[in-house]
Amino acid sequence: MKQLHSAEPGFADAFDALVREVRDGGSPIDAPVRAILADVRARGDAALCDYTDRFDRHPQPLAPEALRISADEIDDATGSIEPSLLDALSVAARRIERFHRAQMPADLRFDDEDGLTLGMRWTALDAVGLYVPGGKAAYPSSVLMNAIPARVAGVGRIAMCVPCPGGQLAPLVLAAARLAGVSEIYRIGGAQAVAALAYGTETITPVDRIVGPGNAFVAEAKRQVFGHVGIDSIAGPSEVVIVADALNDPDHVAIDLLAQAEHDELAQSILITDDAAFAARVAESVERLLQTLPRETIARASWSRYGAVLVVERWTQAWELVNRLAPEHLQLMLADDAEAFAAIRHAGAIFRGRFCPEAIGDYVGGPNHVLPTSRTARFASGLSVFDFIKRTTWIEAGAEAIGRVGPAAVTLAEAEGLQAHAASVAMRLAATGRKA
Amino acid sequence: MKQLHSAEPGFADAFDALVREVRDGGSPIDAPVRAILADVRARGDAALCDYTDRFDRHPQPLAPEALRISADEIDDATGSIEPSLLDALSVAARRIERFHRAQMPADLRFDDEDGLTLGMRWTALDAVGLYVPGGKAAYPSSVLMNAIPARVAGVGRIAMCVPCPGGQLAPLVLAAARLAGVSEIYRIGGAQAVAALAYGTETITPVDRIVGPGNAFVAEAKRQVFGHVGIDSIAGPSEVVIVADALNDPDHVAIDLLAQAEHDELAQSILITDDAAFAARVAESVERLLQTLPRETIARASWSRYGAVLVVERWTQAWELVNRLAPEHLQLMLADDAEAFAAIRHAGAIFRGRFCPEAIGDYVGGPNHVLPTSRTARFASGLSVFDFIKRTTWIEAGAEAIGRVGPAAVTLAEAEGLQAHAASVAMRLAATGRKA
Repeated sequence: MKQLHSAEPGFADAFDALVREVRDGGSPIDAPVRAILADVRARGDAALCDYTDRFDRHPQPLAPEALRISADEIDDATGSIEPSLLDALSVAARRIERFHRAQMPADLRFDDEDGLTLGMRWTALDAVGLYVPGGKAAYPSSVLMNAIPARVAGVGRIAMCVPCPGGQLAPLVLAAARLAGVSEIYRIGGAQAVAALAYGTETITPVDRIVGPGNAFVAEAKRQVFGHVGIDSIAGPSEVVIVADALNDPDHVAIDLLAQAEHDELAQSILITDDAAFAARVAESVERLLQTLPRETIARASWSRYGAVLVVERWTQAWELVNRLAPEHLQLMLADDAEAFAAIRHAGAIFRGRFCPEAIGDYVGGPNHVLPTSRTARFASGLSVFDFIKRTTWIEAGAEAIGRVGPAAVTLAEAEGLQAHAASVAMRLAATGRKA
Repeated sequence: MKQLHSAEPGFADAFDALVREVRDGGSPIDAPVRAILADVRARGDAALCDYTDRFDRHPQPLAPEALRISADEIDDATGSIEPSLLDALSVAARRIERFHRAQMPADLRFDDEDGLTLGMRWTALDAVGLYVPGGKAAYPSSVLMNAIPARVAGVGRIAMCVPCPGGQLAPLVLAAARLAGVSEIYRIGGAQAVAALAYGTETITPVDRIVGPGNAFVAEAKRQVFGHVGIDSIAGPSEVVIVADALNDPDHVAIDLLAQAEHDELAQSILITDDAAFAARVAESVERLLQTLPRETIARASWSRYGAVLVVERWTQAWELVNRLAPEHLQLMLADDAEAFAAIRHAGAIFRGRFCPEAIGDYVGGPNHVLPTSRTARFASGLSVFDFIKRTTWIEAGAEAIGRVGPAAVTLAEAEGLQAHAASVAMRLAATGRKA
């Protein structure tokens, strides 16, 4: 065994080695991403600059000093944004913060009938990394949705990475990051950004968990660093189920279906209704409204390939269909949704009422818009403060308490063949004059 | 798009196809496990029986009707167990249930200043699969720790798989399963059991999440089915950090270090103290007590290779070392642990007091003994009711509320280039006579 003394020279290094020591074997990993991760671990900032020069084609080679986007650059970018847009971002940020504050759980502590004190406490992660995709997929709303829960949870440090293709900054993304309380922003992306967040470089201190969407390289890199740091789940294509009665305006239902479809050719929009004539009117509206959309091609591809209209005989059937689909987003557009709300067990987020389209939740509702896709709402939840805190359970027991519960522990440890376990309890029982 | 009507023939099948439809590509997966998963998906029970015959060497070929362990077999097995052992199991089960009931969170619902009603509700998973290793690693305490939180969470169906090498049942495991409320038990193991739980066969209905430890095949199979179902994290080797002052009995500290070391050659036991002479006495006790242990070889290997004793100058250093280590188990054996408890942010579970060894938590403490290993307590938590419930957030908004928050949503949707999103909100504003 190692013996370390903090007063001795070399203690810090020896302790570092202890902390870093890996106690398991390797596992098969995907080659190109593995190579990038290894290179960033080995060469740090220099590797980050090389990959950025190669993939993001900035006008000038990137120097390590310029990896971090400066406060002046953020000021300039933010200053270029229309005030009405900044106001809208602020409305969203305020509402997201309010909801996530309400979501924070309380600690637990109680004395039980055997004389033990038991507890569970929640503590924040020290540091979180936020990946933000570059180019067109850089949504400021997603920056708010990922960063604000971390800040509300009490995370001390939020480091963000966003690639800047061609060297171009995304002003709205930077403004959202500032508003959300992001501590540091780096102009890097891809697997190299994930490596920097997970393992650190000269410039970037490592984090404990990495969240945020990204391309296939980013997803694979997150998968590979998982275990060393935490990651969020890999999101699939988005989907909505709308349960609507015939009293709705067909155009409203149609545009809500299309709001989902315009995300992505792989998105899925499903209407469930009890009225075939109403379903037909919605389908007509969809065809008409499709032609008005700038993203018509994408929305049409999604609707043609994955769109669906389900007509049920009785509403109770609808609730069961929703439970089978376990949709990411569920809109309930019914005269009275109490029965539906009680019967539906599996959905990422529910939007209730004829005036509450899912797009409200994407921006200003307050609850998170990062939600479980592809039927995973059967077992998974949306992003929340729970992603940025963790539980520590604790037990406090004195001689009296151990006298009550110790003998059962000794019996079970012996039955499992773990004699040191049994002895560790039996020695306490002996010290208090009790028999195991 | 598809149009389905529940009154039409073929609705059930068409809906099934919709539910099952995969909307993404493949990913590289490890070959032999992939082959087993595919075979179980294709051939169902027949494949399960073939693999069980090949790997578990039962005295008779296994028939599909015998996959499930019958109530009579469980009766017989349970009947063979000493009453004192059953009593000890009951004490453990009662205390685990009590703690996990206290852990259940409350739902959230509030009206906000903009007139929206926001909420978050917790619902249980429908069905959970519990994997239990066969042979020597079949610990009844782990069955309690995995199954009871699921039952407390409200999971309707708990299906357990346990391989039975040579056809031998493990009576204590079956008794623990019955006590914990497991619904069904199957005598299968390995990747084939994971496949059966994830995808289902003629005999086994699929589940939504799979928990429990297993060998490398089981871990890889869980990794491969992840996404289709939820999984728990893959546990690494176990560890304990003991922070102890010189007022402790060195034998007590030593046996607690050894209780960890006896699990596994890869286990790690670390003592942190402020007194070098006390550290030396503990090290002597370890050497002496090692010779008394049936599992001496394992414990000695762990202690020699990974054991450590850290002596600090000031206690405040100790708290920071613990935070760096983020240990699975932490024992605080101090005259007053209030300062330590407040300063330590990262630990899976904490055991407080000179009479509260970690082995209490393994069996009868109440909190879960499935805990984050290998420094993952920086971002991860132990098993709990939270593994068996999920959150659905919801928003309810009428015309008035949408009038207040809708315009900001329209502004942001337009800035992100998502016109159908903007239109879905704008149409509601128009319907209420407001401008976006």
